[in-house]
Amino acid sequence: MAPTMDTVPTVDVKEMPEEAHPMNGGDDLNSYSQNSCYQKGVIDAAKTVILEAVTEKLDLENNANFDPSKPFRIADFGCSTGPNTYFAMQNIVEAVDQKYKSQLGKSQPEFHVFFNDHVNNDFNILFRSLPQDREYFAAGVPGSFYTRVFPKASLHFAHCSYALHWLSKVPNEIQDKNSPAYNKGRIHYTGTEKHVVKAYFSQFQKDMGSFLKARAQEIVGGGLMVIQIPGLPSGEVLFSRTGAGMLHALLGSSLMELVNLGVITEESVDSFNLPQYHPSIEEMEMVIEMNNNFTLEKAGALNHPMKNLPFDVQMTSLQVRAVMEGILTDHFGENILDPLFEIYTKKLQENYNVFDKDIRRDADLFLVLKRKSN
Amino acid sequence: MAPTMDTVPTVDVKEMPEEAHPMNGGDDLNSYSQNSCYQKGVIDAAKTVILEAVTEKLDLENNANFDPSKPFRIADFGCSTGPNTYFAMQNIVEAVDQKYKSQLGKSQPEFHVFFNDHVNNDFNILFRSLPQDREYFAAGVPGSFYTRVFPKASLHFAHCSYALHWLSKVPNEIQDKNSPAYNKGRIHYTGTEKHVVKAYFSQFQKDMGSFLKARAQEIVGGGLMVIQIPGLPSGEVLFSRTGAGMLHALLGSSLMELVNLGVITEESVDSFNLPQYHPSIEEMEMVIEMNNNFTLEKAGALNHPMKNLPFDVQMTSLQVRAVMEGILTDHFGENILDPLFEIYTKKLQENYNVFDKDIRRDADLFLVLKRKSN
Repeated sequence: MAPTMDTVPTVDVKEMPEEAHPMNGGDDLNSYSQNSCYQKGVIDAAKTVILEAVTEKLDLENNANFDPSKPFRIADFGCSTGPNTYFAMQNIVEAVDQKYKSQLGKSQPEFHVFFNDHVNNDFNILFRSLPQDREYFAAGVPGSFYTRVFPKASLHFAHCSYALHWLSKVPNEIQDKNSPAYNKGRIHYTGTEKHVVKAYFSQFQKDMGSFLKARAQEIVGGGLMVIQIPGLPSGEVLFSRTGAGMLHALLGSSLMELVNLGVITEESVDSFNLPQYHPSIEEMEMVIEMNNNFTLEKAGALNHPMKNLPFDVQMTSLQVRAVMEGILTDHFGENILDPLFEIYTKKLQENYNVFDKDIRRDADLFLVLKRKSN
Repeated sequence: MAPTMDTVPTVDVKEMPEEAHPMNGGDDLNSYSQNSCYQKGVIDAAKTVILEAVTEKLDLENNANFDPSKPFRIADFGCSTGPNTYFAMQNIVEAVDQKYKSQLGKSQPEFHVFFNDHVNNDFNILFRSLPQDREYFAAGVPGSFYTRVFPKASLHFAHCSYALHWLSKVPNEIQDKNSPAYNKGRIHYTGTEKHVVKAYFSQFQKDMGSFLKARAQEIVGGGLMVIQIPGLPSGEVLFSRTGAGMLHALLGSSLMELVNLGVITEESVDSFNLPQYHPSIEEMEMVIEMNNNFTLEKAGALNHPMKNLPFDVQMTSLQVRAVMEGILTDHFGENILDPLFEIYTKKLQENYNVFDKDIRRDADLFLVLKRKSN
């Protein structure tokens, strides 16, 4: 039974840009590790769905790849600094362990869990916060998940949550003044500028293609891959009418206010664009089909309790800052952060009623893929 | 042909204490990564011996563990922050690759290299300095190598260089005022205090036992392990008459000079001891035999060009500081570092002639072990 397609709020709190803008490291007030509790809600909801996927879709019998005397290897792609990756990995380990017991009923495999993220991710924080009572051996893997980061056929389970909407780069046309896709005065797409959206989707298609190609080589035949990604709900919803789209639009207009105040130049905003794409489920299906190495076993949007929470201005502002601080600092310098987020928080407050409705339209897409046997 | 037993200088520049005193992180003047060139000399010398060991002792034929369609997994235990670990891993990858070509002559395996060190090691620096042109997939593994850190039978080659002389802790008796092994006024053993040396050796035996027990579970039958460790030369040489012993004795007397100057208390020096043991080759043979899971294929002391260099006071002082800064700061606070190493450098200078001879007595022990088949 696939999870029902449903619209849920999302505030994009776990991210992994290719161009070396990792989540805010450390563990202070503005850090990613302190501002990812919304994600925790999504992960709790995903727990049930993962257990279901493993129970129904992971077939251990008559497959030498799942010999219980050999380690079972799991990787989290785009793990960030924790703690959410620990919860997700624990959920997978428990589900797979149960499946071994019920299907093979003999000795359990040992688990080897790999935490992957960009080389600029704060792996020191990640390692120092690993759960003491974990039931697996842990390793960190630095490198872009748009390239190969594991040997051939060495993984049994891959997980990638809130990371694949980060593109490897801003599409070239978006910043080319002579292109119809030139994105002046905005930092992202709203959904109405056809050329801009097309350029973004084309980059997404290319990046997801690279991701699937690399994973197809790394995952054993019969191995599963769970992808969670913030996306568009089904139907004709504009990105600007989702919570994520509005958060980005307001960040853009906050930057423009800094231009008006003479703090930054208009050119600096024109040359800044978010390397993100939020796909629909149909677009995901399309790229998976083009790759042709995986069967799509489940696809839908997560239904989780966080969507019923009222919109929280302060928390949202902190979360967006934790995610965006790196990329903003690289482009504008760190001095703009405090004034920018002061304006941003004010704008969130002014738009409270719109947000409180629009964020219900965000869709946390959840997909289960199975590596075809060679 | 085993390497000849020979006496060579050592200044202990790569270290990994169990009690969370990692090598100095970062990459500035006092960092480990900038002060490990002596080790590089040792690694270059080891390259030849590793190639020899792989050529003669790694048998890939008729052993399913070495199927070239599966990844070949190598781990460096106590890797620190680089760059020496990269050179060592590259040397092993090249030697194993050659061996596959010459013995199996068909498709080569992909290499997966694991960098292990204490969880407080600076893995961020390690990851960001990984060679761009490496021919292997890389992963970091945080955790004490005196415990299990890998799944059963998952490694094909283990390497541990200049790390195992760091004990998991200072032996209890050494700091017990009522024990005959109480080590008042010194920070290490010189070799004449029988009870002190015995307590240190007993801790070493226990720690090496834990190391070998863990590795025996992790390494596949027929897999090799190379251990390099600073040790005592053969014959009746006191530790105090080796370079390492003298460096430690002078560090102790420099601390006592700070006591005389009223900077630190005598009690603080009495309660400080280095958790290090420098074994003889016979002691290594003994613990390997007691473990009984490995055959000792080669054992000797490395003969390398660094031993002909004149003693360099400034470089040695910087190297000792890079290694000891963490453990000293934890016990005495960081304010003592500058005055301490000023005194230390002066003492090294005063003892130049003694050192220049004594450091020739240090032995860089080199051992090749093979995991027995189950």
